Amino acid sequence: MARTADLLGDWWTPLVLREAFFGSRRFDDFVEILGISRNTLTERLARLVDEGVLAKTAYQESPTRYEYTLTEKGRALFGVLASMIRWGDDWLASEEGPPVELVDLSTGEVVRPVVVDERTGKPIDHRALRARPGPGMGEAERARFAERRALRRHVSGPARSDV
Amino acid sequence: MARTADLLGDWWTPLVLREAFFGSRRFDDFVEILGISRNTLTERLARLVDEGVLAKTAYQESPTRYEYTLTEKGRALFGVLASMIRWGDDWLASEEGPPVELVDLSTGEVVRPVVVDERTGKPIDHRALRARPGPGMGEAERARFAERRALRRHVSGPARSDV
Repeated sequence: MARTADLLGDWWTPLVLREAFFGSRRFDDFVEILGISRNTLTERLARLVDEGVLAKTAYQESPTRYEYTLTEKGRALFGVLASMIRWGDDWLASEEGPPVELVDLSTGEVVRPVVVDERTGKPIDHRALRARPGPGMGEAERARFAERRALRRHVSGPARSDV
Repeated sequence: MARTADLLGDWWTPLVLREAFFGSRRFDDFVEILGISRNTLTERLARLVDEGVLAKTAYQESPTRYEYTLTEKGRALFGVLASMIRWGDDWLASEEGPPVELVDLSTGEVVRPVVVDERTGKPIDHRALRARPGPGMGEAERARFAERRALRRHVSGPARSDV
């Protein structure tokens, strides 16, 4: 989670990603549409390519020019952006309503993203959950996890969760 | 979306929020559990209180001590964190599996967060969507929105969306 936040966490990266989701591919498109400086864009695109979120491919030779397209890993990030948009609509929007609406291309209906449990379809509520070490947690982290749980019990009473 | 990203975007804020979701309330709890410096924590908590994500209330007098609890607006952010966790599980986790599992307290089943359309229950796919100005978009932004759409059409071919 922290690594995802770190990736999305500067002002420009989510805007660059949003542009990629909605069709921009070329360096100059991003510059022109976002008004981002060329240096900042170079840095952000390189980071997204390094992370495997965007793929860089040549679309022209002499001079070579590249375009940036979303990988499958990148497309999967749309869920995170959509849940951010929904939270903003619910908690930051003006009284008139959200600044932007997402519309289903086939039905024309407004789409409202919500985060649910894949199995039950019920909205996620942290009060009905606890967290536990998963199969990919290493031994050192497991010890640290138990230690955090003990500290939390000590200082704040019974913990609702073990994250 | 950019404002949500900005809020969640430094390394510490999502970790402070995660701790709040799982029971920590007091300044010293956050310090001890996260190993965060007192200055950084003071700054992050003040930001979260300013944004209305945490509420600060006195739990002791002389000396006055405060605790920090999630507001309704803050609890709603769990969806964003859950979608980040899911993306990390799908795309950053080791072969063994995710480092942490979320478990439903009443059924004991593992919960897998997914972002769906509230009305249809279908997973969100940006390729099946377009974006359009909503009722809360001001006039200046509406002009800018149309301009971006035109630029995108010009430079990248037909746009799939108008965001």
